[in-house]
Amino acid sequence: YNFSAGPAVLPEPVLQEAAAEMLDYRGTGMSVMEMSHRSKPYQQIIDEAEADLRTLMGIPDNYKVLFMQGGASQQFAMVPMNLMRNRVADYIVTGQFAKKAWKEAQLFGQANAVASSADKNFTYIPDCSDLPIAENSDYVYICENNTIYGTKFHQLPNTKGKPLVSDVSSCFLSEPVKVTDYGMLYGGAQKNVGPAGVVFAIIRKDALGKVSRYIPTMLDYRTHIDKESMFNTPPVFSIFVMNETLKWLKGMGGVEAIHKYDMEKAKLLYGEIDRNSLFVGTAAEKDRSLMNVCFVMAPGYENLQDEFMSFAKGKGMVGLKGHRSVGGFRASIYNACTVEDVTALTECMKEFESMKK
Amino acid sequence: YNFSAGPAVLPEPVLQEAAAEMLDYRGTGMSVMEMSHRSKPYQQIIDEAEADLRTLMGIPDNYKVLFMQGGASQQFAMVPMNLMRNRVADYIVTGQFAKKAWKEAQLFGQANAVASSADKNFTYIPDCSDLPIAENSDYVYICENNTIYGTKFHQLPNTKGKPLVSDVSSCFLSEPVKVTDYGMLYGGAQKNVGPAGVVFAIIRKDALGKVSRYIPTMLDYRTHIDKESMFNTPPVFSIFVMNETLKWLKGMGGVEAIHKYDMEKAKLLYGEIDRNSLFVGTAAEKDRSLMNVCFVMAPGYENLQDEFMSFAKGKGMVGLKGHRSVGGFRASIYNACTVEDVTALTECMKEFESMKK
Repeated sequence: YNFSAGPAVLPEPVLQEAAAEMLDYRGTGMSVMEMSHRSKPYQQIIDEAEADLRTLMGIPDNYKVLFMQGGASQQFAMVPMNLMRNRVADYIVTGQFAKKAWKEAQLFGQANAVASSADKNFTYIPDCSDLPIAENSDYVYICENNTIYGTKFHQLPNTKGKPLVSDVSSCFLSEPVKVTDYGMLYGGAQKNVGPAGVVFAIIRKDALGKVSRYIPTMLDYRTHIDKESMFNTPPVFSIFVMNETLKWLKGMGGVEAIHKYDMEKAKLLYGEIDRNSLFVGTAAEKDRSLMNVCFVMAPGYENLQDEFMSFAKGKGMVGLKGHRSVGGFRASIYNACTVEDVTALTECMKEFESMKK
Repeated sequence: YNFSAGPAVLPEPVLQEAAAEMLDYRGTGMSVMEMSHRSKPYQQIIDEAEADLRTLMGIPDNYKVLFMQGGASQQFAMVPMNLMRNRVADYIVTGQFAKKAWKEAQLFGQANAVASSADKNFTYIPDCSDLPIAENSDYVYICENNTIYGTKFHQLPNTKGKPLVSDVSSCFLSEPVKVTDYGMLYGGAQKNVGPAGVVFAIIRKDALGKVSRYIPTMLDYRTHIDKESMFNTPPVFSIFVMNETLKWLKGMGGVEAIHKYDMEKAKLLYGEIDRNSLFVGTAAEKDRSLMNVCFVMAPGYENLQDEFMSFAKGKGMVGLKGHRSVGGFRASIYNACTVEDVTALTECMKEFESMKK
């Protein structure tokens, strides 16, 4: 039972496929890892990944799909470098990653924190219906699901017509989205759609090419657009596994179907947290993430924390430790996590309660 | 028979290990791909990779070892951003990748091309015994093995006391090197030491922290040094495969032993090229690469090129097409390529000659 926040659990059929191809990918006599990125079989893999993503999300033609390296952290610099035309942008600071993105943007222009939930340790999403968006703002930035704090924007901010840039690393493909609500979405694959080492980005074409600053070649989205994510050697194996994960998702019925499944899992786990007298959730109820479920021992039971961790570990559960800035526990229940996994955890919580009370 | 220039052939035991771990890495019940980069098993993997690299190369303590993303192409910007203190550096232009690095450096300061072999389509390494190195030059830059042109620096340039920065992507761990001859060595793993998606760098500590320009967080070597290559999620699986490849190399007897093996393979193939009346090598004999062997049809036989390619393909050989800027053929015979692979190719060349003459 792997509840890691990322890298995280992958669907078992995807892992089986990856193991099977290791000594011979579809009769080529080699692994995808050994394959030239200029070869036909690899071209097919990356083409399929893009096509599947476009189908799953309904991405319109005026949005480009990119696969890059460097993680979301590198995007924290690339977003302002590429999009801060007037050198002004508005950031909504709802957690550590949003904060890092905001800090990095300050190096390229005026990055305003127009809203923040730092006052309550990022346990909620601030009201974003009427923010002081700058008139000449180039974009409004959010981290849509906050992995560390277990919160999510269930309603997108009112950007007052400015393009919305969203880091969707930890909620990607967990629910239907309207791509046209965004100027850009991006994220690391290692949470919900593949292994670490590949970043996807979906960018409205007209957002680019408007800045005058010099951008290093590899940090310029246009480089990757011009060469269709093959300017240099892409992380071929990571993209292969991502492609297999997208196929698995299609097989599961697509984003609508997985969203129902994800809601079922989240309901099960939050239900148990709310029912169980030993535990309490940390995120504001209305802002709870479907992917990262954060909870701590209820007041008066704090001393049982280590014991519950050991108890859960004894039942084969890993990755449950909460981030040090929140403490307690965090169960990341991404798409590939099963109802059985979540049930095992809720049973474990029930059993622990009956032992202690 | 995979002669791809990169991503390239990996040792079969490494692939078997990767396939075997896919559903359960050493009793953890999960693949390394699913493993938190903050977990103990993963920490052990990255620690082992660094330790093995240090042992194999004899890396002194005053050099840092980093694992990053973005490929060598991203280093083309990171090197000048981090090391161009006086905003002057000297580049030796011996091929497309050296040229790209030189061009990128021009965006950060004065990058002088102090030597070039562009006059003869990069088929040789220029004399670098007495170059006009600038007095205030921050470093001298080379691409030590030119993958596209099949040339290699068999003697390092006289840098007149300036630090040498070397892109060793396609010759890494193919022969013993004296690390102290360099200020920095770096390269993409996907040629000689693992899958695509991870870049290694070995940097003399005192080379850093001297520039005053602003460097984006992810492009600053100090970020990765401070966090021991774990500032953000590293490409965990790529580093795992790299670690397995390093272990395989140790098992083969280390760098001295593999160098003998590489020389044997190169001698076999260049010997056949020189003997066979249908083929001719493209690189200057004294500068021939041990890793990338470039050859074309001999004068008068140019019309047989496609036929030989088909003939070789019929015998199961892939990745033999030369880069478009050279034409003809290129056999990349990295560490994991076997004498049997090379023999199959030389036999194929012999057979083709006897058919045609």
